Formats: sequence, structure tokens, C-alpha cells
Amino acid sequence: MSARVLIVDDLFPNVKLLETKLALEYFDTLAAMNGPDAIAICEKGLCDIVLLDVMMPGMDGFEVCRTLKNNPLTAHLPVVMVTALDQPSDRLKGLDAGADDFLTKPVDDTALFSRVRSLVRLKAVTDELRSRALASRDFGMGDPLALATAETGLNANILLVEDRRGAAERMAAALTQQHTVTIEADPNRAILTAAEGGFDLVLVSLDLENFDGLRLCSQLRSLDRTRTVPLIMLAEAHDRARVARGLDFGVHDYLMRPVDRNELVARVRTQIRRKRFSEVLRGAVQASMEAAVTDGLTGLHNRRYLDNHLGSMFSDARLSDRPVAGLLLDIDRFKSINDTWGHEAGDEVLRTFAERVRLHTRTIDIVARYGGEEVVIILPDAGLGEAQVIAERIRERIEATPFSIQRASRTIPVTVSIGVAVRQATDTGPADMLKRADVALYRAKDSGRNRVEAQAA
Amino acid sequence: MSARVLIVDDLFPNVKLLETKLALEYFDTLAAMNGPDAIAICEKGLCDIVLLDVMMPGMDGFEVCRTLKNNPLTAHLPVVMVTALDQPSDRLKGLDAGADDFLTKPVDDTALFSRVRSLVRLKAVTDELRSRALASRDFGMGDPLALATAETGLNANILLVEDRRGAAERMAAALTQQHTVTIEADPNRAILTAAEGGFDLVLVSLDLENFDGLRLCSQLRSLDRTRTVPLIMLAEAHDRARVARGLDFGVHDYLMRPVDRNELVARVRTQIRRKRFSEVLRGAVQASMEAAVTDGLTGLHNRRYLDNHLGSMFSDARLSDRPVAGLLLDIDRFKSINDTWGHEAGDEVLRTFAERVRLHTRTIDIVARYGGEEVVIILPDAGLGEAQVIAERIRERIEATPFSIQRASRTIPVTVSIGVAVRQATDTGPADMLKRADVALYRAKDSGRNRVEAQAA
Repeated sequence: MSARVLIVDDLFPNVKLLETKLALEYFDTLAAMNGPDAIAICEKGLCDIVLLDVMMPGMDGFEVCRTLKNNPLTAHLPVVMVTALDQPSDRLKGLDAGADDFLTKPVDDTALFSRVRSLVRLKAVTDELRSRALASRDFGMGDPLALATAETGLNANILLVEDRRGAAERMAAALTQQHTVTIEADPNRAILTAAEGGFDLVLVSLDLENFDGLRLCSQLRSLDRTRTVPLIMLAEAHDRARVARGLDFGVHDYLMRPVDRNELVARVRTQIRRKRFSEVLRGAVQASMEAAVTDGLTGLHNRRYLDNHLGSMFSDARLSDRPVAGLLLDIDRFKSINDTWGHEAGDEVLRTFAERVRLHTRTIDIVARYGGEEVVIILPDAGLGEAQVIAERIRERIEATPFSIQRASRTIPVTVSIGVAVRQATDTGPADMLKRADVALYRAKDSGRNRVEAQAA
Repeated sequence: MSARVLIVDDLFPNVKLLETKLALEYFDTLAAMNGPDAIAICEKGLCDIVLLDVMMPGMDGFEVCRTLKNNPLTAHLPVVMVTALDQPSDRLKGLDAGADDFLTKPVDDTALFSRVRSLVRLKAVTDELRSRALASRDFGMGDPLALATAETGLNANILLVEDRRGAAERMAAALTQQHTVTIEADPNRAILTAAEGGFDLVLVSLDLENFDGLRLCSQLRSLDRTRTVPLIMLAEAHDRARVARGLDFGVHDYLMRPVDRNELVARVRTQIRRKRFSEVLRGAVQASMEAAVTDGLTGLHNRRYLDNHLGSMFSDARLSDRPVAGLLLDIDRFKSINDTWGHEAGDEVLRTFAERVRLHTRTIDIVARYGGEEVVIILPDAGLGEAQVIAERIRERIEATPFSIQRASRTIPVTVSIGVAVRQATDTGPADMLKRADVALYRAKDSGRNRVEAQAA
């Protein structure tokens, strides 16, 4: 994946050097000579990844990184910190600030390209999700990005695939303060454990006895149930080639042995945050799609849902010559409830009404708010007799217990009138059936309300 | 990106050979010995890419490919056809069937891995989108996958970056039967042309004079405005290394010179279909999110949208000490319109009412359907006097022209009563303001309807 790489360094020769290297590999580059400029470029969405020098006058690299990672607009950008020396303390400070990885000057080309490519590829997969979630924010469905950015990355469920007992226990001890850790010493069982366990992250040793840890990583990245779970490889220093290969096929990160306890904790947390960031966004998109077919007040389906489903349900019934019934329910004298007790009380009545109706319908039935105080119920496979029994039960359950309003400070009696109709062979569509239910409903109202009336036979 | 590769071949040794090669590169493999088995595996979603032998007894590779590409469940899977000889006619038949690429036996390893990796990476980016679109189908928002699969890939807007005049004209001639082609001979201008032109596909020569076509490809893949546009490289046979490099950073496909006219047409069409497939899915997700905050009948915003936005609009106004006005509109005697002319006429009145209201409000105002025949308008920065003027204008525009109902066969007079209120310093939230608007609305109804009343000063 090609990408726009932002190089942040206060020294022009350093910028030039990285620019040249990246351009030869067909990356596009931008440069910023200080922190505030870099942040402005990121906020404008002009780059895909940031190579960030640590030592800069004014705002240093750690501060720039922290700012980027705490801003919902830029938190998704991968940040690679470039440090002058391989200082463990710098790495930790960077990881604490939310950095995704490190490069040590002088920058090794292979490490640079493999890391940048891998981070950009992982980003590309979530970019689509992020832009949908951004749209849901524009439609006023809350701000999922802010929520996602606030995720702390703690209390995760971690699987550690490691057959060296001492190493496994040391790592588990470091992680159990913040997370729950399961150790799996048998790599042959690991794929099943991972698929069934609902883990937030898997750590895989590349030095397992008689087993290629990289193969396990590849399987985890391939299986539906585990492919979005972040993977971290544990590797010996001489094993850089296999690490690069793993990054190339989608492993998220790695740790070199001997594993530094603090670095382990920090990298695990970064990956957990990244995963949950995606999950929050995915949830937000899902929720706004569910909202599209749900009535906000009652939680019942709305008319849009009914219109979308009723047609196909009706023609399925016609093709297989099976019955369908439609119930039209209308709360009696609802306007006077509103006028006497106020709109809020009217809303309370509607919500309670919806709850009781839902209790007496099945999952396969469609229950939808049709208009102000009208609800439609569609019963697949129900004939007229059965539908009347269900309607009568609902009518009775509404009348039996008065509705509490004004936060349970008062109860009022509520009744419902119901019209029942079933599909007829001559119907050209569901509208015909609903019209008969409507006629029956009017008859119920005319005959004194609190009644069930069925279509004329 | 690791992936599950389905190998389809009726000869066991061929399957074994490909399995071994792919396993060494950490791909997961599955095998099918005939077409129907292959299709079943794909339909169950068990693989990410298909390597498909052409010559099989029973259902041949072309038929398998066509079946996969015409099924909404499997149309997104990349298919690479494996042919015994490099037969141009086989390639064309494959492309016609919708194949994404070809490999010739004996399979060259570099070509195999670079192609499989590139196709799997492109797929990974759209997988997220596809799964959201699938969810929108489950919620009953139509079937975007079926729509997307039906896309024919014709009538596209194509940019051809090529400085050899003869070659450019030959290719343009082949494509203009189905598409519109713009030739850009100056590679330095091509990036601007591409960014501004709204192209569906860009063809880039890798043999431009004094210019690296691969660099142009990389820039096109990096820029926001062009990164989702499919790219096809045009390369000389000796240039396979650069082709592989392009595929690695995200170029979608390539053609070897001398360009076969039919292969050109077929590959262009495959890429256009792929792009539009994504666009249809993206549009479906977007539409279902828009639907979540839109009233289905009138197209106005719904109460959910109002609730999501009003709070922050109100507190912004409080912080900056600026006015906000709220109008509550209620159609007069709406129930009698319904009772006299029927529900459908009532719906027509609501729609026309919403249209007229929208005409007299600004983009920054919120106009939302509040209940059955009630509409709320929120006017940022409007004081009581201004809000009254706007309310009076709307009242007048509703009364002035009778509403046509029953498909314009009849017109009826409609009037509206409006209550107006503005934010006060003592308000704890927007509900206080809306309550005053409600009181004013009741006063308007009490005083004979078809009136604007404002809150007491």
C-alpha cells in the first residue's frame, strides 16, 4: 500500500535522508520541522503515518505523540518514533505516549520499510470503518471517535502461546496486574484455544519446540474467528527475517527477547487500545444502522422496517400457500391521555404498551409502530382463529393492569382496540390485508372500544 | 496479509504442488477437486481467494468463475485462473467470466505470491465495508449485495496516461465503445487531471519518457481524492520487477505490451465493476445511517436527530450568550383530514407541509417531525421578533395555497398553528424552551387556530 509519510525532524539533513529513502520505495513524503506543524498536518488528514523524531526544541516527540494519540481526529494515525540511540527509557516513554513503534538512528532500511508498510496496511483496513463512523457522527449519532479514543486498553483477555515455562510465567506475572492471562504451552492446541476463547490479544513465541510459531500466526490471521485479534510475536534477536515476514502478512507487533517487562506491558496495551478503537467504531456504525429501523420512543420496529419486510414475507406466504395474519392495534382515547396528563405521560403509556405487546409476540413476528398510537403486528403462519386468540390475549393484558405514569407516582387505566385480518388468495399485496384490519379496527372502535374485531369472513 | 487460499484442481498432484508452495509462504490452503465443491466452500465464506484450474471434467473453470461472480455471496472473492498454456483465448474467456487474473502452468512462484498477496490485500480493505453492508441487509434496508453484484462495469470515465500517441489512440479506440476516455500525454499534469476529473479508472504507462510511471501510480494511491480509483499499469514484458513492485504498493492490475485489445477491454471492465461494487456498498451503509435520523414519511429529520443535536446547540448558545428560538407547529384539525379523506391523503398533506416548511428555513436550522402532525423548528441566533416573523411567514404560506391530495385530483385548505419561544437565561435545558413553545401553541389553538402565538414576555 502506498502512503503519505510525514517526517517530523528539526534537522533538515535528517528529513532529506528519510525523504530520499522513502521516495525510492515509492512512498509520498511530507515534512514538518517542529511539533505544532506536524500536529496541524495530521489534523488536516494529509498523511497516513508519522515518523517522529524524539529530540526537538520546544515540543518534544513524546509530547507530539501524546497529543496525536489523545485527539479523536488523529488517534488512528500510526506513529513511529525515531530515537538517536536505542535507549530503553526512551522506548518506554514513547510507548507510554502511545507510539506504535521505534526506529533507531542510523535508520536500517529493511526495518523502516517493513514497519511502515505493515502499519500502513493495518491502517488501510480500518480507514473505511473510520470514515463510516465519522459519517454517523455527522448525522448526530453521538461521537464514536471520542469514545474510541478514550479507551484505556486495560482488563483484556490475553492468550500467551509459549512452551518455555519460566519465560511464560515471567510474562504472565507482568501482565496480570492489568489483564487476565491464559498460558498455552501446546502450540497444536493453541489455534483451538484462540478460536474458542474470546481473546483480545495473542502473544506467540517464534521459538517453540518442533513447531513454527509463524505458521500459527498465519493461521490466526486467516481464521474468521481470530483474524481481527491483535498478534504480537516473541522473537530472538537473530530472527529478524522471520519477524519481517510476519509483519508482512499482517502480524501487528513483536518483542525481542529478552523481553523487557515494561515494554511488554506498553506494547500489549497499545494493541488492545487499537483493537477496541475499531470495535467501538464498528459498534457505532452497527448501532446507527439498527436505529434506522427502530422507533426511538418505544424500541419497536418502525414503519420503514415494516415496509421493507412485509412485502417479501407476504409473497413468501403466497408462494408456499401459507397463512399470514395482520393485527392493527390502537390505544383507546390516547389523545385524551395526552391532553389530561401531558405528552410525557402519553410517551410513558406508549412505552409500556409496547413492552406488553412484545411480551405476547414471538421473535418471528413483526411488531412495528405504525403511527402515533397505532401498532401493527404481523404473524407469519397464523390463521384467523389463532390471530384472534393472540389479539384477545393482548387486549386482556393491556386492560388487566393499569399503566403507571409520571414516574410511577400515578396509575391510569388503558385499553386497546384491535382489528384482525388474514391474507386472502385474492390479495394483490399486504396493503389489502392491512386495509381489512383497519376496517375491523374501526368496527371495534364503533362498538365501544376495548374490543377485538376480525375481518368479515 | 495472510489468507485462506482455495485451490481448485481435479488432479491431486497439482493441488499438492500449489499447497506446498503456498504453505511455505505462510498461506493457509483448502482444496476442492471439482467445481460444485469449490462453490460450496466459497458460499460458506471459508476462503479469501480462489486459484481455479480451467480444465476440469463436468463444470469447467470458466463456469465456476461465472457462478461465483454472479452470486452476491461470493462475487467479492478474487479468482485467479490457472491455465495449462498461455492461451489468449483462454484468458479472454476467463476475463469474460469475471476472473481477476491468470497464472500459467508451470506456475512461476514470484508471480503467484505477488498476485495472491496483492489481491488479498485489496480484498481486506473492502471486507469491513462488505460486512457493514451485510448488516444493513439484515436490518431490512434492501439488499445492497445483490445490487452491487448486478453492476455491469460499463460507461466509465477513464484517464489514460500515455505519451506514445499511436498506442494511446489504439487503446482509446478499443475503450470508447463502452466508456469515455481522456488521454493525458503529459505525466506532470496527470496527477492534477486525475485529482480533478472524477475518473473511474486510470491507466498508466510505465514507459513514459523522462518520467517514472510507477511514481505516478504511488501518488495516485496516496492522495485522498484518487486513492480509491482503480489503477492499471501498462508495461513491457521485461519490466516484471516493476510490475510486482506496483502490485505490492496497491496498484490493482496490469497489462503487458503489446496490449491485446480484448484483454484491455475485459480487465478495465473487471476493475470498474470492483470499484462500483464498493461504491454501492458504501452508499448502502451511508443511506442506512442517514435513514436513522430521517423521518421516512416527510424526509424531515426525526426526533432522534433533534434530541441528539438540540442539547449541544442549546449549550453552545448559552456559553456564547446568543439567542436560540424554537417553533412548535401543529397542523389544524389534522385528525379530521384523516377521517374525511383517509390516511393516504393525511400522508400527502404531511409531505407537502414538510416541503413548504423546508422552503422557509435555512440550512443551519433544525426542522424535525416531532410527533404525528407536529413539527419543531430550531433557529440558532434568532431572537423572539425574528422567530415570530419567520413563523408568521410559514403560517401564511401554508394557508395561501390549498393542498392537493389524492394524486392532485382534489385540493383542500390546510392551516397551521405555531407556538414560538426563545432561550431564557434561567432555562436549564432546551426542554424548558420547548415547553413554553407548547404553551404558546395551545394558546394559538384556543384562540381559533391558524395563528402564531409567542411565549409571554
